[in-house]
Amino acid sequence: MNKIKEKVNAAIVIIGNEILSGRTQDVNVATISKWLNELGVKLEEVRVIPDIENSIIKTVNELRKKFKYTFTTGGIGPTHDDITSKSIAKAFNLSYGYHKKAYAILEKYYGKDKFNIGRKKMAMMPVKASLILNPSSGAPGFIVDNVYCLPGVPSILKSMLDGLNNKIIGGKKILSKTISVQTVESEIAKSLEVVQHKFKKTEIGSYPFFRLGKIGVSIVIRSTDKKKIDDCYKEIVSFLKKKKINLIGSK
Amino acid sequence: MNKIKEKVNAAIVIIGNEILSGRTQDVNVATISKWLNELGVKLEEVRVIPDIENSIIKTVNELRKKFKYTFTTGGIGPTHDDITSKSIAKAFNLSYGYHKKAYAILEKYYGKDKFNIGRKKMAMMPVKASLILNPSSGAPGFIVDNVYCLPGVPSILKSMLDGLNNKIIGGKKILSKTISVQTVESEIAKSLEVVQHKFKKTEIGSYPFFRLGKIGVSIVIRSTDKKKIDDCYKEIVSFLKKKKINLIGSK
Repeated sequence: MNKIKEKVNAAIVIIGNEILSGRTQDVNVATISKWLNELGVKLEEVRVIPDIENSIIKTVNELRKKFKYTFTTGGIGPTHDDITSKSIAKAFNLSYGYHKKAYAILEKYYGKDKFNIGRKKMAMMPVKASLILNPSSGAPGFIVDNVYCLPGVPSILKSMLDGLNNKIIGGKKILSKTISVQTVESEIAKSLEVVQHKFKKTEIGSYPFFRLGKIGVSIVIRSTDKKKIDDCYKEIVSFLKKKKINLIGSK
Repeated sequence: MNKIKEKVNAAIVIIGNEILSGRTQDVNVATISKWLNELGVKLEEVRVIPDIENSIIKTVNELRKKFKYTFTTGGIGPTHDDITSKSIAKAFNLSYGYHKKAYAILEKYYGKDKFNIGRKKMAMMPVKASLILNPSSGAPGFIVDNVYCLPGVPSILKSMLDGLNNKIIGGKKILSKTISVQTVESEIAKSLEVVQHKFKKTEIGSYPFFRLGKIGVSIVIRSTDKKKIDDCYKEIVSFLKKKKINLIGSK
C-alpha cells in the first residue's frame, strides 16, 4: 500500500464557478472539516476549481493519490453546468450512465410522471459507484474508490454526512484547546515560539481578533494527544501569568 | 513570454491551519474575487494549504507559473506560525531579512520603544520585495514578481486592496446578469442547455436557492461582452415566458 495513503488525511475539491466569482460564499469547507475532526481525519488541502471537465479530472486524479479521502462538492444537479459525475467517471475511466439504484430512488422520490429529463440526469454517474443517500432532497451523492461526491447546497450536504460516518475509517480524534487573552500577538510571539519549540508535534496557532471593540489573541493548541495539549496549555498559562496578561477565557 | 501568462487570470493561496481545521470561516476569497472582477481579472483557482513551508513553496511555485497573478493570504504576522514571508523568499530563492522600508514604516507606526522583536519580525521578508501599504494596522504586505502577499485578517486585507489597483493590469471587466425565477432546476435544465450551446463563450450558471420559505433558481450569465449577455438574457426570458415560469427579479 502507498505509504502516504496510510496517513488519515483528506482533501476537498469545491467545484463551482459561483465560489470563484465571489457570488457565493463557501461554507462547506468548515462543515466537512468539523465533521472530519470528529472522525479523526485531518483536512490537509482544499481546492476551488471551475466547472471545467479537464480541471475536475486533473485535480481529482492528483488529490485522490495524495490523500486518503477526497471529497468533492457541487456539480451533481440537473443542469448543463453540473458536470462532476461525468468528469469523475472519466477520471477513473469508468462507464457513465444511469445508475440503477439511483434511478429507482429518484423515480420513487419524484413519482413516475414528474420524473423528467433534468431529474433523470441526477441518476447518471459512474454506473458502478456506491451511493451516498440524501435524506433531504432525494438525489444521492456517490463514492468511487476514495472519492466522495457531495452536492453544493450546504443544507443538503450537511444532511448527507451522517450517513457516511461508517464509511470513513478515521484515526485518533484531533483534540483542541483555545486560550483567549487580552493582548496583541507581538507581546507573546517569542514565548509562544519557545513553547512550540518544546512541543514540536503539537500544533500551536495564534489568531488575533477584534470582538466587542476589544482586541485580543486566541491561542489554539491541536493534537491527538490530550496529555500533550494539557502540558502545553500549562506552559502557556504560566508565561501569560509572568507577563501579567489577562486570560479572557479558555475552552 | 509564456503564453498562459497572457490570460488575465489569478489564483489565491489561503495559508492557514485555522481554515483547514474549520475553526475560522474564510471570507477573503469572496473579497478578493469581487475586487478582481472589477479590475477585469478572472479568479480561476483557490487553494487552502497548511502553515508548512514546503507546501507554501510548492504551491506558490506551481501557481505563479500557471496564472498571471497569485495572491496569498495569511501568515505574515509576528508569531512562530507566520512563515509565509520566509517561504516566499525560499520559493524565489531570494535573500530574506529586514526590509529597510518596511522596518522604517513599522518603527514609525509603533514608536521606537514599543518596536519589540515580534513586531520587528513583520519587517522581515524578501529584502527586494515591493511593499503593499497597510492603511489600517501598519504592517505591510509585499509583492515579488507576480505574487502578492496579503494578511489573513479580513478587515486589514480589505483595506489594503485599494492601494493595489494601479499595480494590477486587468483585461476586459467581467460583467454579469442574474435572473431569479420561481421554479426548480430540473424544469429549466433542458432549455438552459440549449441556450448555453448557442452562446458557447458565455458562462451560464444555475443555482437553486431557498429564501423566505420559497424555492427558486438564480440563473447567472457572465461574460466580458455586454451584448452577448443581453442576447443570452433575451433567449432565457423568452423560454421562461413560454414555460409560464414566474420571474422574481433580475439584476
